[in-house]
Amino acid sequence: MPDKVLVYSRFPKAQLIRFGERYELLNAAGKRLDEAFPAAELADIRAMITAGGTALGADAMDRLPKLGAIICYGTGYDGVDLAAAAKRGIAVGHSPGANAASVADTAVTLMLASVRRLMVADHYVRSGDWAGAKPSPMMRPQAGMRGRKVGVYGMGEIGRKIAARVAAFETEVGYFSRSKHDVPYQYFPTLEALADWCSVLMIAVRAGAETEHAVSADILRRLGSDGFVVNISRGSVIDETALVAALTDGVIAGAGLDVFAREPHAPDALTALPNVVLSPHLGGHTLESHVAMQDCVLANLDAFFAGDPLPYKVRGA
Amino acid sequence: MPDKVLVYSRFPKAQLIRFGERYELLNAAGKRLDEAFPAAELADIRAMITAGGTALGADAMDRLPKLGAIICYGTGYDGVDLAAAAKRGIAVGHSPGANAASVADTAVTLMLASVRRLMVADHYVRSGDWAGAKPSPMMRPQAGMRGRKVGVYGMGEIGRKIAARVAAFETEVGYFSRSKHDVPYQYFPTLEALADWCSVLMIAVRAGAETEHAVSADILRRLGSDGFVVNISRGSVIDETALVAALTDGVIAGAGLDVFAREPHAPDALTALPNVVLSPHLGGHTLESHVAMQDCVLANLDAFFAGDPLPYKVRGA
Repeated sequence: MPDKVLVYSRFPKAQLIRFGERYELLNAAGKRLDEAFPAAELADIRAMITAGGTALGADAMDRLPKLGAIICYGTGYDGVDLAAAAKRGIAVGHSPGANAASVADTAVTLMLASVRRLMVADHYVRSGDWAGAKPSPMMRPQAGMRGRKVGVYGMGEIGRKIAARVAAFETEVGYFSRSKHDVPYQYFPTLEALADWCSVLMIAVRAGAETEHAVSADILRRLGSDGFVVNISRGSVIDETALVAALTDGVIAGAGLDVFAREPHAPDALTALPNVVLSPHLGGHTLESHVAMQDCVLANLDAFFAGDPLPYKVRGA
Repeated sequence: MPDKVLVYSRFPKAQLIRFGERYELLNAAGKRLDEAFPAAELADIRAMITAGGTALGADAMDRLPKLGAIICYGTGYDGVDLAAAAKRGIAVGHSPGANAASVADTAVTLMLASVRRLMVADHYVRSGDWAGAKPSPMMRPQAGMRGRKVGVYGMGEIGRKIAARVAAFETEVGYFSRSKHDVPYQYFPTLEALADWCSVLMIAVRAGAETEHAVSADILRRLGSDGFVVNISRGSVIDETALVAALTDGVIAGAGLDVFAREPHAPDALTALPNVVLSPHLGGHTLESHVAMQDCVLANLDAFFAGDPLPYKVRGA
């Protein structure tokens, strides 16, 4: 008999195929546990798969008395109450770096599309305005990438991959992180100092209480009127209301956003703007990164049921 | 008295300011010379500024009996009849490499936006379909960049800059060019061999009789159903009818196009497709590259009027 694994968040079926081949899946599909399954069925669940952004607190853990492993599909684990898990002796695993290349690619895609006004350009061609020689103030030449100072906020695996890509565009790269890393980029001791220096801010920091609304009205103002902000991390890192105001008032020039404060909702004030590029949290959403993330989930599950430590354990969990 | 310079193509006024500070400009603004100016006014013109893509043949040169220098604003000079110029002892100058970084950035922007389906993604967020959890087959995970084989067609300054940028995305880079270059990328002796090997084809070759419609239905088929083509060179290099058919029938997955066969017109069959990203020939259209191109134009004009050889002369002209 295969071991049972609870699937907590709502995942597309295609992403669960490989898990179902090896385990018996109980799929809550994003529903509350008490609504999804009778307590008796939950009683012997020892492992669960969840999405890192899904809230998973003490109350849910208490419905799973035999739970020994929470396995996050993806890099993030910000929804998991790590203290509650530790208190109950539950190991927490994730997929570190598995989607880093895809997420970094998304960051650079959003950066280039924002700086070079790709949405406006595509519309200018499709609408026939180009063919009709209709003047477009938005299509006047702007500063491009060469010689730009690009700041990376956070220097984990995704931040490093963003920095390596951005450096190939003949830019200067700097970063702010809690600690200095052995990387060939200029270190700034505060986010304020980084924002004063750079005109493009790439957010690659982990979500959490420490980083909530770290990118504030003040930080955006420091980027300047030719400034851009790109976020592929979590919506909570930016003060979204301040961002909408900065974009509307020309405090900064544009933004590229893959994540939002209240997903899947993006505020109307944001979706109405021409100087933003928006994507539906698809950062790590490529075939190859799903395979890599599934590899990590399976390695974690297999180790757990074999009685071994998780190979991809959340640090400090 | 400042020397007179004829401006042949239609340029935005902002791009002519620096030339007007040093020379007396006669601006034909894209009109035929015989309609723009009386013959007497053209009689003593010794130098002209033109856009490389604008047709400039023997008939126009014959209206300018004292013409000694044709200065192209930009890298291209495909519109200039070099043989006719040589026969009349007219030097031809351009702005080599001045816009290479901006053009290469545009190529990579179009590549990433096509492969990651950015236009569809942005629309999915703005339309409210994401918030409404509306299923979107176009938003299913696709292969991203990591591990992709990317082929660069042409290894001039722009081709090299494209290759350097693309390599930063954890890809393999190959190229085809008339001759092998001292670059760290795999060389393919034919465009067919390159297209068989790669799934993304970046066109960075100079326009001309030799390259016209070089990217044919056969080349596109070799890229495969997960294939993409990106063109920042000239529209003439692709058989546009074959491209539209390949995109419509799923022979390739998508395209990113900054240039078209009959600019500023993009065929309706192309603008109706969801799997293309289009921009209005803005490759080199950044503030910094305009400054660099103007530097080249001024250096060429100043040298010509001082009786010196052009510092940025078209090779073979």
